[in-house]
Amino acid sequence: MSSTIDTTAPPFEHLPPWVLSKLRPIALEKIQAVHDWVETECIPADSIMRAQIAKHRWQMPPLMRELREKAKAHGLFNLFLPHHFPGSPGLTNLEYACCAEIMGRVYWAAQTMNCHAPETGNIELLAKYANEEQKACWLQPLLTGEFSSAYSMTEPDVASSDATNISLRMEKVGDEYVLNGRKIFGGVLWNQDIKLYIVMACSDPTNPNPWRRHSMVLVPSDTPGLRIKRNLSIMGYDHAPDGHGEFVYTDVRIPATNVILGPGRAFEIAQGRLGPGRIHHCMRLIGQAELAYEYALLRATDTRKTPRGRLIGSFDSNIERVAQIRLEIDALRLVVFNAADTMDARGNKAGRYVIAQSKILVPEAVARMIDECMQFFGGQGLTQHTPLPEMWTYARFVRVADGPDAAHRHQVGRDQLKGAEKVRGRHERYYRLAQELKRRFGLEEEMGDECVWEYLDVSAISSKL
Amino acid sequence: MSSTIDTTAPPFEHLPPWVLSKLRPIALEKIQAVHDWVETECIPADSIMRAQIAKHRWQMPPLMRELREKAKAHGLFNLFLPHHFPGSPGLTNLEYACCAEIMGRVYWAAQTMNCHAPETGNIELLAKYANEEQKACWLQPLLTGEFSSAYSMTEPDVASSDATNISLRMEKVGDEYVLNGRKIFGGVLWNQDIKLYIVMACSDPTNPNPWRRHSMVLVPSDTPGLRIKRNLSIMGYDHAPDGHGEFVYTDVRIPATNVILGPGRAFEIAQGRLGPGRIHHCMRLIGQAELAYEYALLRATDTRKTPRGRLIGSFDSNIERVAQIRLEIDALRLVVFNAADTMDARGNKAGRYVIAQSKILVPEAVARMIDECMQFFGGQGLTQHTPLPEMWTYARFVRVADGPDAAHRHQVGRDQLKGAEKVRGRHERYYRLAQELKRRFGLEEEMGDECVWEYLDVSAISSKL
Amino acid sequence: MSSTIDTTAPPFEHLPPWVLSKLRPIALEKIQAVHDWVETECIPADSIMRAQIAKHRWQMPPLMRELREKAKAHGLFNLFLPHHFPGSPGLTNLEYACCAEIMGRVYWAAQTMNCHAPETGNIELLAKYANEEQKACWLQPLLTGEFSSAYSMTEPDVASSDATNISLRMEKVGDEYVLNGRKIFGGVLWNQDIKLYIVMACSDPTNPNPWRRHSMVLVPSDTPGLRIKRNLSIMGYDHAPDGHGEFVYTDVRIPATNVILGPGRAFEIAQGRLGPGRIHHCMRLIGQAELAYEYALLRATDTRKTPRGRLIGSFDSNIERVAQIRLEIDALRLVVFNAADTMDARGNKAGRYVIAQSKILVPEAVARMIDECMQFFGGQGLTQHTPLPEMWTYARFVRVADGPDAAHRHQVGRDQLKGAEKVRGRHERYYRLAQELKRRFGLEEEMGDECVWEYLDVSAISSKL
Amino acid sequence: MSSTIDTTAPPFEHLPPWVLSKLRPIALEKIQAVHDWVETECIPADSIMRAQIAKHRWQMPPLMRELREKAKAHGLFNLFLPHHFPGSPGLTNLEYACCAEIMGRVYWAAQTMNCHAPETGNIELLAKYANEEQKACWLQPLLTGEFSSAYSMTEPDVASSDATNISLRMEKVGDEYVLNGRKIFGGVLWNQDIKLYIVMACSDPTNPNPWRRHSMVLVPSDTPGLRIKRNLSIMGYDHAPDGHGEFVYTDVRIPATNVILGPGRAFEIAQGRLGPGRIHHCMRLIGQAELAYEYALLRATDTRKTPRGRLIGSFDSNIERVAQIRLEIDALRLVVFNAADTMDARGNKAGRYVIAQSKILVPEAVARMIDECMQFFGGQGLTQHTPLPEMWTYARFVRVADGPDAAHRHQVGRDQLKGAEKVRGRHERYYRLAQELKRRFGLEEEMGDECVWEYLDVSAISSKL
Repeated sequence: MSSTIDTTAPPFEHLPPWVLSKLRPIALEKIQAVHDWVETECIPADSIMRAQIAKHRWQMPPLMRELREKAKAHGLFNLFLPHHFPGSPGLTNLEYACCAEIMGRVYWAAQTMNCHAPETGNIELLAKYANEEQKACWLQPLLTGEFSSAYSMTEPDVASSDATNISLRMEKVGDEYVLNGRKIFGGVLWNQDIKLYIVMACSDPTNPNPWRRHSMVLVPSDTPGLRIKRNLSIMGYDHAPDGHGEFVYTDVRIPATNVILGPGRAFEIAQGRLGPGRIHHCMRLIGQAELAYEYALLRATDTRKTPRGRLIGSFDSNIERVAQIRLEIDALRLVVFNAADTMDARGNKAGRYVIAQSKILVPEAVARMIDECMQFFGGQGLTQHTPLPEMWTYARFVRVADGPDAAHRHQVGRDQLKGAEKVRGRHERYYRLAQELKRRFGLEEEMGDECVWEYLDVSAISSKL
Repeated sequence: MSSTIDTTAPPFEHLPPWVLSKLRPIALEKIQAVHDWVETECIPADSIMRAQIAKHRWQMPPLMRELREKAKAHGLFNLFLPHHFPGSPGLTNLEYACCAEIMGRVYWAAQTMNCHAPETGNIELLAKYANEEQKACWLQPLLTGEFSSAYSMTEPDVASSDATNISLRMEKVGDEYVLNGRKIFGGVLWNQDIKLYIVMACSDPTNPNPWRRHSMVLVPSDTPGLRIKRNLSIMGYDHAPDGHGEFVYTDVRIPATNVILGPGRAFEIAQGRLGPGRIHHCMRLIGQAELAYEYALLRATDTRKTPRGRLIGSFDSNIERVAQIRLEIDALRLVVFNAADTMDARGNKAGRYVIAQSKILVPEAVARMIDECMQFFGGQGLTQHTPLPEMWTYARFVRVADGPDAAHRHQVGRDQLKGAEKVRGRHERYYRLAQELKRRFGLEEEMGDECVWEYLDVSAISSKL
Repeated sequence: MSSTIDTTAPPFEHLPPWVLSKLRPIALEKIQAVHDWVETECIPADSIMRAQIAKHRWQMPPLMRELREKAKAHGLFNLFLPHHFPGSPGLTNLEYACCAEIMGRVYWAAQTMNCHAPETGNIELLAKYANEEQKACWLQPLLTGEFSSAYSMTEPDVASSDATNISLRMEKVGDEYVLNGRKIFGGVLWNQDIKLYIVMACSDPTNPNPWRRHSMVLVPSDTPGLRIKRNLSIMGYDHAPDGHGEFVYTDVRIPATNVILGPGRAFEIAQGRLGPGRIHHCMRLIGQAELAYEYALLRATDTRKTPRGRLIGSFDSNIERVAQIRLEIDALRLVVFNAADTMDARGNKAGRYVIAQSKILVPEAVARMIDECMQFFGGQGLTQHTPLPEMWTYARFVRVADGPDAAHRHQVGRDQLKGAEKVRGRHERYYRLAQELKRRFGLEEEMGDECVWEYLDVSAISSKL
Repeated sequence: MSSTIDTTAPPFEHLPPWVLSKLRPIALEKIQAVHDWVETECIPADSIMRAQIAKHRWQMPPLMRELREKAKAHGLFNLFLPHHFPGSPGLTNLEYACCAEIMGRVYWAAQTMNCHAPETGNIELLAKYANEEQKACWLQPLLTGEFSSAYSMTEPDVASSDATNISLRMEKVGDEYVLNGRKIFGGVLWNQDIKLYIVMACSDPTNPNPWRRHSMVLVPSDTPGLRIKRNLSIMGYDHAPDGHGEFVYTDVRIPATNVILGPGRAFEIAQGRLGPGRIHHCMRLIGQAELAYEYALLRATDTRKTPRGRLIGSFDSNIERVAQIRLEIDALRLVVFNAADTMDARGNKAGRYVIAQSKILVPEAVARMIDECMQFFGGQGLTQHTPLPEMWTYARFVRVADGPDAAHRHQVGRDQLKGAEKVRGRHERYYRLAQELKRRFGLEEEMGDECVWEYLDVSAISSKL
């Protein structure tokens, strides 16, 4: 019951009042439950999990399997699922954001709750666009965690950030499609839990409309012709057991019924996928930043580490650094929470700007802050003595995942410049009023064009010249 | 009636949903009224106001006098006044923040509504700490705008950011106090609208408690012995008619009844003054940043300014710059709104952290962004062809007003490091649980100290060693 | 004699050994003389000069006139003049850079030595491109300091950073040219020492070659039709007595002989003007940065300014700030010295890149560093209590003078990308050798395309595919 | 012969003229030889080397062994060795810096020439401080490359950046010293080429002089009691075959003759080690930055990667980024070259400041620039498709190696503040002269204290008050 929940203690103490006031009792309970779960089952188990991964490599480590079962039993599965989807616990985006931040404290914690990428995006995609048969076959097992999935879009030979370039070819041959080409990222075949690849392919390369040339298809992992060349590391980390494969498709045949929504509709689907899923990463990064910050605090007050006989945290420069990180984390959290809340209030489509805002501001800043926290540890900060290097790598990765930040910034900037017309109209009015005032005060002669709008191409002015 | 208010248009369109949902109908109306006022009476009149200031120098320009009367008649006076003060329009801090942002679009607009610094802080101070007689004499006229006031704390000879250094001496002689010393900032004597100086002085220099050595006193501007040497410019701007004087106090005598709250209580009062007043500057800076951004947009789409035959806004580098500024303004607005809302929800004292957050993050960022906007204009951007240079100067000034940002960062950092103990407790628990897990999985031998807490001075570890 | 010069003391102590070793005895003497001059006659006189400027406004202050005579008598005039020009003291660019840094310690010191902008650029221009008659009439008096000159290129209505947009019209009418249009920057008419305006005008707007449409002409300040509307301030400073006027040309008639080098050759001349003159600003900015740094040091060790009872300079954060500024000034000095030395060694044309490097890196960094130094002073740092605000403004101005830094960066970037072809050739060779090595080690099969060049469009690869 | 060397082509084309002019013919030849070596034998072999390392793990890969033999035969061994050491090729620091930059293009190239860390520092240390017997036994084989060595200072339990904290205990027992404690970094025992550990240990913990408590000792790798627990990864890279071990010393016994220079003299030796060796990393980082920049250029002009149908390098934002990186690399190279040249001219001790300057500015900037170059590649930039991630990691590592940059900045800042006294003296003189000028111009009354030095605690002023 929420009556027992103390909102002045973790995990609620850092929540802004406006967020706290929007959390329903059911959400408070879930957040508390996620907190307890992560605090007790995940953070302390981090090194065990790493040890198991080192041993089991590309298979799901036993501890993960165990924790997933346990989390499911505790009702902690699929918390991300929007309330209008069957099986959803019914959290709002804002409520889920609170959960996701907590999950973010350990990279793999989200997976114990089936709330990890790319699962969340794939599940949303299937729930939204798959037909009943496809749902039964693929969505259901993903929801129960029976198997896992991958999302396969990026290619090594084109600029994938502009998805119209996607070139993996699919051709209709009888009742089947035949796929040929290359993909990178999106799981590894060696991980036998991954049974499904959701693949974006070029089905109609000569369609005059570049947004209708591609299809989204379901490729079972055991389809002949699908081959993995090697795993791609990210800044040196192999990210086992999930990995980021280099895939070759050689005459990979799938039934025509494996096309989602119909041929040529990949962009429609991809667009729809860019809902909440896109900022789950950002939500979790806030949690990572918090943990990194805690490590910095611990090191800053470590009585065994005393250059010049002083605690690291007694140096004013470090005091200011601690403050700056604290202030920025809290500012970024507001950005993410506001994005979630805006999606709740106005829908995912209207949320496009706030999603981009999170995507652009959060990963860059979090990577920078984790780097700063590492620096508190000196040389040790770069080693496996702390998870900071891996955390930094995750944040750095999110800066390029789903397109580099420059691409998103470009999109936002173009949208903004389109809005300049409206701003111009407003300033035309200022200009007209200013001219009236000059006349009223008899200052026309004296002042001349001492007025900002004379120097700007507001159309009222142009017409004057 | 709020029924006629369109919350998808300015001034509401940029408000986050969570803010919009908290605005009561009465606030929507006030915000709309402030918007209409600033759009129609202030922004277009900016150059007229400047022309009048150039002419009337240290006297309130006639247009300001006229607009203040008009604004008062329209019920737009003292909007900042917290709801528990008599005469308050009853806006919450959050609601007022929406108003203040709009006022910020023109530096002097707040003054037309009697919502300018230092008036707001002084009014709050008097309302909170003055006795009835003092209120009748000084507070009432300030509320009606009959005259103006100044706040005089900073001194040229000490580090005033640490107010325990304040050295202007006041000594009891009979029923009077005699003041001797120097002050800088806080109005000019030439401005005859300023009738009152609220002065921090050292009344008990040998008190063992450094926080009880100072008093806050009311000094009428016509008190003999109070002299101004010259005005201080800020980055070259004299800020007439308000100014920033260099004052000399030579045997300035005030009645003992002019002490606020009693001798030795200056810090108590100064503390209390650090409520909402402290972030009004930040609220307004958001409005300044918005206007600067609009100028950048206008220049970016100015058809007469086309290097290499292209609109400035068609260069990708500028597209990215536009986006980055847009994103940051919106992030900072969230910081300021959250500060206001937190004060509403938890009181000014609990708001100390969020106030510091605004104070540290906003002025620095806004100054940087205005600078970037100036750069869009090339050489012209630094001239009086736009108000950008003066806007930059205001933002830059706020970075040092009320103490340089480093001093605030220092305070936040020290508070945070005090909280490290709690973080440590949490991590001790992680460590104990991790040890149990190692045992449970029989990994003690194999893993050794492969666990972050081994490398941190968590007391559980120390005790182990 | 140089024998008496101690190169371990100022002004030599900060010079890198490689610079010191290149200074000839005659240069050491000049540098020492400039140092003594600036230390004794200029820095201490700064406030006097300001007081006189405040009084005499748009006329050269008496002290300046006096110091110029005295400096000329001491042989300190025109030090900047390249050795191949008559009247040159024969300093190399590197040697002059040492002088210019010292001059930079006070904004107006260069003028006492006739080494100020735009005089230096104009003198070079005339010496290089004017005919004998023009030289006798205009160059000679500039060299002796009889009168002063301005350079008039920027216009308010076009993007002047792309000079092909310059639109002030000049039309041949009989033996005269008639000029009509507007200019901004480049002196004020009220300053009666400025007798000459060197003006870029559009003489042949329909010439198919956009680089042949403009001419450079000599316009005496007393030519009828030349009118000044007002002075432009720079960040609030009017920069009297030189100023930055807004000029209107209405049927301004000049003799056809006032065209320099011939019609249509403005770009040729402008190009030639971009020699050393372009980085004199940068050289002087290093000196400004040094002085700003000294003020910061003085404040950091000011025993009267002790927040929390500690010297400002005892805070570790400030210790780090001091270090960072010191390190960056010294790095920037290397950039400027290298630019000067490269021009000495390879000529101005080959120096284009290093000039751009100074122009882009130095003003931005110096403005940032002066801002940081101001911050050491708290609120006082922004007032006229120090010259820091005016120094900041100068550095900020240089960031846009001669085109905003983005325009220069753009030019450098485009040049660099043209050089990509050469880099590509080099990497093609790496690729071929790598393939040979794979074969030699029998690793072709095993390694596949594990080699960076496979992922880059090196043509060897393309041909392979 | 140098007569055949074309100094306008690589590797000389980017050298500043002042550097080029200081390179002797013999140096030009060596630089050319190093260039040819790296271009032909190293860069193309990078992926082969990586493949061998992946296979041979902690043993020197066969290709490295082969290349070392070949390089030795070509006279490319030990180029770093200062000219006064036997066996030195006689290059100045500046000349060697040119070589080191080229070596830096591939991480492992320096090792092929026996010019890698920590070998260079260790060889210098032994050459300078070891006795003849020690030299014969350890220095000689290092010079011929017979075996390798490690430097062992950092410890996990103390703040090693302040080396007085070093706690590994050594106690005299008979003719031996017995070592107990822990070390991190500095090779791995599994690498059987590493035969020698140069270890800093605490021999006299109670000596009142903290700089005399430590000794530097020679520990053969096969000494009983010396054990490695595991390898430390750096941002996920294990850096095989060299590695960074965690070492445990349990009753490790070495002969008393293995102490270098005598007990208690570790700091003397460590100080001396901070010569050129300290900035070899920085020299090489310039080469890394150049290569990263080349990759960015190649990607920017890759005709297969065209978002929105445009080359990545045709986006203005990327054009500016390319320019900025180019400009900064060249500025940093000047910093490194100047450090090398200053050491040549004034010795290592006098070079302390310039060494710190390189150490502080270069790694931070190079890491940032490589990060920017990675971003050009989108997601692919973080994978092993380019060596950029590993290059970034190396630069990041150097930011903490030999102490985090904050520690060095702290030292520089403290030194600078000590110099404030001298600055103060200079400004006292300015103040006196200013007072004289005021008197001379009769402005004392009028101007009052309008002079910067009035506001600074210059002692002349204090005495006035």
